[in-house]
Amino acid sequence: VTIQDIDTPAVIIDLDVVERNIKRFQSYCDTHHIHNRPHVKTHKIPELAALQLSHGAVGITCQKVGEAEVMAGTGVSDILITYSLCGRGKLTRAMALARRIKLSVTCDSAPIAEGLSAVAASAGVVMDVLVECDTGLGRCGVQQPQDAALLGTLIARLPGLQFKGLMTYPLPGRVAETSAFLAEAKRRCVYAGLDVVVVSSGGTPSMWQAHAIEGLTEYRAGVYVYNDRGSLRSGAARPEDCAMRVATTVISRPSAERAIIDAGSKALSSDQYGLDGYGAVLEYPEARVSALHEEHGFVDVSGCATRPEISERVHIIPNHACAVTNLHDSVVGVRGEKIEVQWPVAARGKLA
Amino acid sequence: VTIQDIDTPAVIIDLDVVERNIKRFQSYCDTHHIHNRPHVKTHKIPELAALQLSHGAVGITCQKVGEAEVMAGTGVSDILITYSLCGRGKLTRAMALARRIKLSVTCDSAPIAEGLSAVAASAGVVMDVLVECDTGLGRCGVQQPQDAALLGTLIARLPGLQFKGLMTYPLPGRVAETSAFLAEAKRRCVYAGLDVVVVSSGGTPSMWQAHAIEGLTEYRAGVYVYNDRGSLRSGAARPEDCAMRVATTVISRPSAERAIIDAGSKALSSDQYGLDGYGAVLEYPEARVSALHEEHGFVDVSGCATRPEISERVHIIPNHACAVTNLHDSVVGVRGEKIEVQWPVAARGKLA
Repeated sequence: VTIQDIDTPAVIIDLDVVERNIKRFQSYCDTHHIHNRPHVKTHKIPELAALQLSHGAVGITCQKVGEAEVMAGTGVSDILITYSLCGRGKLTRAMALARRIKLSVTCDSAPIAEGLSAVAASAGVVMDVLVECDTGLGRCGVQQPQDAALLGTLIARLPGLQFKGLMTYPLPGRVAETSAFLAEAKRRCVYAGLDVVVVSSGGTPSMWQAHAIEGLTEYRAGVYVYNDRGSLRSGAARPEDCAMRVATTVISRPSAERAIIDAGSKALSSDQYGLDGYGAVLEYPEARVSALHEEHGFVDVSGCATRPEISERVHIIPNHACAVTNLHDSVVGVRGEKIEVQWPVAARGKLA
Repeated sequence: VTIQDIDTPAVIIDLDVVERNIKRFQSYCDTHHIHNRPHVKTHKIPELAALQLSHGAVGITCQKVGEAEVMAGTGVSDILITYSLCGRGKLTRAMALARRIKLSVTCDSAPIAEGLSAVAASAGVVMDVLVECDTGLGRCGVQQPQDAALLGTLIARLPGLQFKGLMTYPLPGRVAETSAFLAEAKRRCVYAGLDVVVVSSGGTPSMWQAHAIEGLTEYRAGVYVYNDRGSLRSGAARPEDCAMRVATTVISRPSAERAIIDAGSKALSSDQYGLDGYGAVLEYPEARVSALHEEHGFVDVSGCATRPEISERVHIIPNHACAVTNLHDSVVGVRGEKIEVQWPVAARGKLA
């Protein structure tokens, strides 16, 4: 079986590039004495988590309990869930995990902290909790540095919980603001008598500026393992660092300007991120993936000197690797044209 | 177990509404003597395909061989794949299916027809083929009515293939243009000595105008089984016809105006379709799902008189039901608050 025999659309992963990406960021973290805790939402593959850990990651990051369950089931022993857990079912599952592995979670409000405390205390578990800080993204997180100290104090007092530090997902590129918020929040926590062991930031766009965040102890990057058009735009990666591509076949050439490929939004996702189009066609750099229907990709080939023909196979660098992962049951790992492995995306669909 | 015990995000299907939707369109088709061939890409669930067939559908429509394999494996015996099949692996799989069930496919070019013929002839199969017509959408399909007759003539001559008729996925709302193209294409085919047994159109937006298409024998609608914000906008459905909702929990209220829910693009999809926001919140009609990150939904609650609190559960009518189906491993079928069934989305991820 060669790479050409795989029915399209299919996700192809260049394993040499993945390994290089993992090594390069681990080396950066080692140089700057930052703990590397990669986010597995990008790949959702236990074998890749194991590879990241074997290269020096201190643990992994998950966004959902279901992802953590899959990863813990394959032997990962230190997981941070960067999410406010809520609801009896999910909390019960998290406590079951916390009995087996080192599990930390994040929290940005008293109701979430109290919910965690109630189940942790009754389960006889002590769970590490980081206070999530909104350092500029405008998503979750306490809004002011002093709120981090207030919530941290509550967490430290609640049974079953241990305050461990601060966590943010920053607005990409805003290193100074991120740093200032976290430093002030830490100062307020220390003043309140809290021990801030962990200061954790994340995101591939700003990963090479992690060392510029004052007091940072840990970094969580996800996309860097594969990279995508988003990584290229942020400058976090070069074209040769892109390990993921979606193999697709031209199934129709209804007109001179239009090629239709068999990868649509169900294979590439509709994530656009303000980028032009829905992916970059490796073999035809002038082609533009102008629109996606569910199972059809529209490619404007009017700018191409030579144009793809029906049944021709082309490869797309997606806009957003994490979204692609989440659509496919498996990926094909290759070295050059040789298939080395096919991995199930074991944590795919673990939404809760 | 009640509906409140299901960990969020989760897809909830109102079975009473599904049954009403299926019956209503079947009755419309029966009245107008149109064969109903529902597209299963919307639900990807064999049990719902069986329900559609038991109410009078003549067969089903699939977009991918992998979907057809799943459906054939559960006893569906008449499947149209509205896709130009291409590539040895896929063609071989299609021929294996064609030996077990009545399988038809579509085609819009000579290379696709020749590829189909080569494998069909060598497999000793005769496969029914519809010529795909671009009646205005600008996706796949022959561009002019006379091209349909030319391609039909080629198909009729090729070994292993039988020309069966015409197929289009129309530009929603353009019934007159669709009708004119198909009528002219049929006239040209008949003039060329071809027997046009099937004239097939599709799409939920225009489903209630199917009878206005001259000579139409068959209709393929997908979304109508669930309906979504797209169906509401096109006028194909009323709010009470929406059977699918995504149950989600408010996990953060960082500010007075902002609620963060645990359904992001991995649960709702990024499909926007020109609609405002990414879904309608049933319990808070004034709320606006303003943005999605992978696992976070941003809800602007500034327009709401009362506002949801942390740990509150809300339900979202998605923009695009098919995209949601494609993200979830299972759906929960309910009547009122009572869970009746949990169905695996068996054909989810069958992208090839």
